Amino acid sequence: MDINQKVENALKEIKRGSSEIIGEERIKELVKNYFEKGENFTIKAGFDPTAPDLHLGHTVLLQKLKIFQKYGAIVQFLIGDFTAQIGDPTGKNKTRKMLTPKEVEENAKTYKEQVFKILDKDKTEVVFNSKWLNALGAKGIVELTTTYTVARMLERDDFEKRFKSNTPIAISEFIYPLLQGYDSVALKSDIEIGGTDQKFNLLMGRYLQRVYNVGKEQSVIMMPLLIGLDGINKMSKSLGNYIGITEDANTIFAKVLSISDELMWEWYDLLSDKSLQEIEKLKSDVKNGRNPKEIKEMLAIEIVDRFHGKGAGEKAKEHFDRVHKQNKIPEDIPEFEMEPMNIVDALVAAKLASSKSEARRHIKGGAVRINQEKINSADINLESGKEYILQIGKRKFAKVRIK
Amino acid sequence: MDINQKVENALKEIKRGSSEIIGEERIKELVKNYFEKGENFTIKAGFDPTAPDLHLGHTVLLQKLKIFQKYGAIVQFLIGDFTAQIGDPTGKNKTRKMLTPKEVEENAKTYKEQVFKILDKDKTEVVFNSKWLNALGAKGIVELTTTYTVARMLERDDFEKRFKSNTPIAISEFIYPLLQGYDSVALKSDIEIGGTDQKFNLLMGRYLQRVYNVGKEQSVIMMPLLIGLDGINKMSKSLGNYIGITEDANTIFAKVLSISDELMWEWYDLLSDKSLQEIEKLKSDVKNGRNPKEIKEMLAIEIVDRFHGKGAGEKAKEHFDRVHKQNKIPEDIPEFEMEPMNIVDALVAAKLASSKSEARRHIKGGAVRINQEKINSADINLESGKEYILQIGKRKFAKVRIK
Repeated sequence: MDINQKVENALKEIKRGSSEIIGEERIKELVKNYFEKGENFTIKAGFDPTAPDLHLGHTVLLQKLKIFQKYGAIVQFLIGDFTAQIGDPTGKNKTRKMLTPKEVEENAKTYKEQVFKILDKDKTEVVFNSKWLNALGAKGIVELTTTYTVARMLERDDFEKRFKSNTPIAISEFIYPLLQGYDSVALKSDIEIGGTDQKFNLLMGRYLQRVYNVGKEQSVIMMPLLIGLDGINKMSKSLGNYIGITEDANTIFAKVLSISDELMWEWYDLLSDKSLQEIEKLKSDVKNGRNPKEIKEMLAIEIVDRFHGKGAGEKAKEHFDRVHKQNKIPEDIPEFEMEPMNIVDALVAAKLASSKSEARRHIKGGAVRINQEKINSADINLESGKEYILQIGKRKFAKVRIK
Repeated sequence: MDINQKVENALKEIKRGSSEIIGEERIKELVKNYFEKGENFTIKAGFDPTAPDLHLGHTVLLQKLKIFQKYGAIVQFLIGDFTAQIGDPTGKNKTRKMLTPKEVEENAKTYKEQVFKILDKDKTEVVFNSKWLNALGAKGIVELTTTYTVARMLERDDFEKRFKSNTPIAISEFIYPLLQGYDSVALKSDIEIGGTDQKFNLLMGRYLQRVYNVGKEQSVIMMPLLIGLDGINKMSKSLGNYIGITEDANTIFAKVLSISDELMWEWYDLLSDKSLQEIEKLKSDVKNGRNPKEIKEMLAIEIVDRFHGKGAGEKAKEHFDRVHKQNKIPEDIPEFEMEPMNIVDALVAAKLASSKSEARRHIKGGAVRINQEKINSADINLESGKEYILQIGKRKFAKVRIK
């Protein structure tokens, strides 16, 4: 394969799943230059030091960075610790987290443990922006704020909305985008990656590299926000539709299997190490009749392996199958309607046990489930107006509706 | 006189000529405390380090500070050198002056030479805000900007106008009022004085002293902007209606004498060391028929003495009278109408000289003036359509109109 072909293929992988790229030509040059001369380039990605627990949504950027590393990039893994040291003398902003240097260090450690499950350690520099931002001093910070106007800052989407709705914006919030942009000046980054919601700040890096005569303007690649388990909202801790990358293998596997077939293909694009060709192949398999569940299992295995080591995915699949089979409810089960009564009486009434003593024995032996939950006591009353699935052992089921 | 009476009188002198006072009760307490226990308090006044040449307009504040010094104040003479070191990386703002530390020092020296003609050196601390503002560091500056919102900053009159008219406002301009306010935090000032145009910034000092728990909130006294020689606009270098305090004695004297009687009383209030009682006396003198020109001469003498030493005012008055008498044009002088011609011929035609040779002799001897300007050459032609006052020596005049 000649170099131009290799560059084209690399570009396809780089662009895969991205929302927008600014300065694409330069990215192409950097990759070509790597293939031709082995010269590296830099790509910057910023991370919040106050929240080191990553979920799958965060790994969209990490997966893309891994691709870049394949094609010559040194990742500038930037921990934005400068703002974490900023206090609020008014005491109004109680929700903003302040971190001590020790906490920053601990969080950084947690980050590293997580990100090096994806990134190549040898092609990653972990950097802290407090280093050069503190060095700017009072003078440097004020100088930085001479470069941008109030009106242009208010053009940023969220600022505009808040300003129009009279929601307070602290002046410091006008400084943060400039600080993020200045990080690109200090690091002389060739590329910066971020979410689509970061566009304003990513472009600020380009602008400030020009103002401060860095001699280049970073290209910008924006990734979409990963849709969460619900298939509707972006993945977030607060919405609960997330997969934490430190969650146990079985949980991750089950959660991935719960997503829709449609979302699965989006996740393949954004999260899988499989090549575009491999993914195309899987799509055509499904068209030709293959059960999409198998494809989803492959994705789940890949993701579990990533965070719990090779082989962990297969084990999680076996566990899932076992549990799932055990708890499977047959489609056609006998139904009963009855008065409110004790579980022992109900098991007899639903013909799952021939006598109360048999019913009690099954409960004692751990063979009885209500709504798939094993029960340990006979002291349970079925309540008026509710429906229950009663089960003894693996094969005896009944549905009871309480009058 | 009992203490309460003394305090009342002091308050009257303090309030004299001021536009607005905020926290007047506290000023009263501070003065009373001084009379009772001899305890000093502080009053801050900020000066621009880029323009050390003061005119009379600036001395309005200095005169008020001098009054405060009489009643126990230590003046914090603040040279705002921090902002003078701020560059503009965009290079757009070419008009803003940047100063080297050496230039700041030289300007400070010039300031001191000028202000200690008014202020008591022993009750004045000259301070530079770069000291504590640089010490804030990058972190401290950003923290400072968390204390104030964009919307409230835009309420400042000039910002609001510029924002509405789409005139660019650099974000740094939102920081400067906070820096000025922080000066009051660092200096723990009891009072700050400024022009009425500084109200927003003066109140910022109160606000930030509260936010930063200084334990007091500075009182604020605002002085009107001095009206210039034209009697209409505020005194300013660019309008040319000013009296520079380093101008020579004769110029200052003549300029003061040129102002209107109405403006004279305003200047007395804002610039004179005379007490309110003395000024009231002068006003009643004028009502009883005294020539206001004499009162104006007294003011001019006082101001010249202030900047050129005791006695300089009397000398300037004598010089003024001499020149004025010399150049006085009698009210009733002969008038002539004539063709365009040479000055020598004109002097003869206007019967000021009996012959051309006599006219030439007078010119050579320096006795001839045209429109009160001495001429040194006979090679001057009077031009068509103009009027000239011709004069030989002190007493011979003629008005000639050239056809």
